[in-house]
This record gives sequence, structure tokens and C-alpha cells, in this order.
Amino acid sequence: MSLALDPAAQDLLFREARTANTFTDEPVTDEQVQAIYDLVKYGPTSMNQSPLRVVLVRSPEARERLLQHMAEGNRAKTAAAPLVAILAADNEFHEELPQLFPHFPQAKDTVFGDRAVRESSALLNGALQAAYFIVGVRAAGLAAGPMTGFDHEGVRKEFLDDDHTPLMVVNIGRPGEGAFRPRAPRLTYDQVVTTV
Amino acid sequence: MSLALDPAAQDLLFREARTANTFTDEPVTDEQVQAIYDLVKYGPTSMNQSPLRVVLVRSPEARERLLQHMAEGNRAKTAAAPLVAILAADNEFHEELPQLFPHFPQAKDTVFGDRAVRESSALLNGALQAAYFIVGVRAAGLAAGPMTGFDHEGVRKEFLDDDHTPLMVVNIGRPGEGAFRPRAPRLTYDQVVTTV
Repeated sequence: MSLALDPAAQDLLFREARTANTFTDEPVTDEQVQAIYDLVKYGPTSMNQSPLRVVLVRSPEARERLLQHMAEGNRAKTAAAPLVAILAADNEFHEELPQLFPHFPQAKDTVFGDRAVRESSALLNGALQAAYFIVGVRAAGLAAGPMTGFDHEGVRKEFLDDDHTPLMVVNIGRPGEGAFRPRAPRLTYDQVVTTV
Repeated sequence: MSLALDPAAQDLLFREARTANTFTDEPVTDEQVQAIYDLVKYGPTSMNQSPLRVVLVRSPEARERLLQHMAEGNRAKTAAAPLVAILAADNEFHEELPQLFPHFPQAKDTVFGDRAVRESSALLNGALQAAYFIVGVRAAGLAAGPMTGFDHEGVRKEFLDDDHTPLMVVNIGRPGEGAFRPRAPRLTYDQVVTTV
């Protein structure tokens, strides 16, 4: 069974794409990040709520502050990556809903009037958008190194605020020497999919 | 700034792809779902934990049971879709970790020994995989209709168990007449991305 997506694109986004642990010195420009965002912003979220927010950690001083919150095993590669992005969910995304979901603007106060409901929805939908973002980094011909191993409260306090929940930190760049570990096995179709 | 991914693939996966609300009668085969899975299984998760589980709702009797738990506005399209999939996170994913992350099998009991830690990690990583799955449905030339509007506890009890958390229900098929609402606006780059 062949897919509609051409095999080179399948390789670029999934089959050959790998989490990178080292990077070359080639910079990642704002123009590249904008091209990635302008593609993956179209990925679907519940009621188009689009809660993902991105902090690009560009200054050496900010990078230094971030490193202090990374798990030890993630520190060296986060120090060396050409660009590091903090992906976060905006728990106050409902403020933008009248713009984003114009045919049901009341959803801002009815469906999403409660903060706990928003937090839960922002987490799920922010994670969907984080995955689209990773796919977008690969679509740009770059490698992503997504990490959840960091002090989440520390990163929140240092770079965000109480209205934002950090989801992951992503190293971005061209893979360097020894960038890839051997591919780990995946679950088989029968381990994952059942039919009723 | 152009991306490495060719423009036709960008359109197929993001720019032209849309959430479908109606479908043709053309069936979606198990072979298609397997081709989708065999591509998107390579998307990255934390320690390759791969918590996504998929229930294909194929029998008319199971479809009927599912409809009772869908929000009213999602019922007609879920009744009519050629295939409906329940995407769930496996909170006991750590049982498979020694297979999935062979260079650190102890993670099963050290990092993921606590159920609350597993639930939180399975939710985030299951959502990443749900997004990869949606991209995969589009890669197969099909349209996805992902929905979070349903009674999650009801679906859990009816189709899953206490170890699994439903993430979304996805209608899958070829778009039918009037399948698409007008494209809703997206946030601008400057609304989403900041630099420090």
C-alpha cells in the first residue's frame, strides 16, 4: 500500500529524520523559523485554539540561564545547538478565540470560561502543535532535538509566566558528527491497533 | 525562504489539508491504516515511549455505541465517516520500554515507576503521536476529522480501560460534498514567537 505523499518526503519527515544530539555551526535564521511556522500553523487544533507559543533562546545570556534548568544529560547539546526553542502552551489562549474561531466567539466564555478546562485543552492542543512544529523543522531540512528533561517550573519562572506551561525544549540545526543514536525499535501495528 | 519539503507535499499535509466534516462512501482499508502507522511510528517521543494506542471502530454495533458518547454536533459526521478511530494514551506504556529503549531498560522502574508521572508523560507524548497520525492520514491522501467533543469517561469505559486515556476521536475518509468550512484565521508569527 503506497501513500499519496512521495517517498522522498516520507523519508525527510519520518523515515530518515532522526532526533539530533550534535549540530554543525550553521546558524538557523529567523526567516527559517518563520517559514516553518507559516507552514505548520495550519495544523488542526480544537476550535482552532492554537495555544502554542514559542520562545527562541538566542542571546548567550539567555542560553546560559536555560542551561541551568536542563537535565545534566541534555546540557551539552543544548549549549551547542545553533538555535534553541522553548515550546509552551498558553493557558489564556481563549483571549484570541474571537479572532481564531469567528463563527462561535462565545466559546471564549462558555466552553473555555474555566481555567482548569483551558489548561487541559491547552496542554493537549499545544502538544499537537509541538508535533507539527517538529515535523516543520524537518520540512525545513533541519534536525530537531526535542527534550522534556528539564526543570519545568524553573523554565516557566525564568522565561514564561503563570499563564504559560512549558511543553518541551527543542534544539534545532543541521546534524553534526555522531548526531544520531542507532534507531530504536518501534511497536508493531498489532501492538498498537485493535479493531472493534 | 523556501523549505526543503516540496510544495506539493506542503499543500498535501498542511496548506491544502483541512478538517473534513463530510465524507464519500469510499472505504478506508486496514492496509491504508497500516501504511499510515508504518510511516508515523517513527515520529519522536520521550525515550521512545510510544504511548499511542488506536481503536478502529469498524462494526456497526461498535459505531452505535460510540455515537452515544459523542457531542451532539459531532454525531452525524461520526455516523457517516468510512472509518472512525479512537486515539488513546497507554498509561502503562513503561511495560514496553525495555523493548523500545533498550539502552536504558531501567527507565521502566526508575523514571516511570510512578503512575502519575506515567499519566502525564503518556498524555503529552500520546498527543504528539496523535498529531503525527493526523499528518499520516493526510499523507495517505485522506482527510481527518479529529474531535475532542465527546464524553471521555464514557468512551474510556466503553472501549478502553482504566489504564488508557482517550485523547481524541478521528473520522477518516475522502472528503465529501461541503466537507470544509471556510479556513479560519491563524495567529501571526509575531503573536506566537518571541526572542530572548
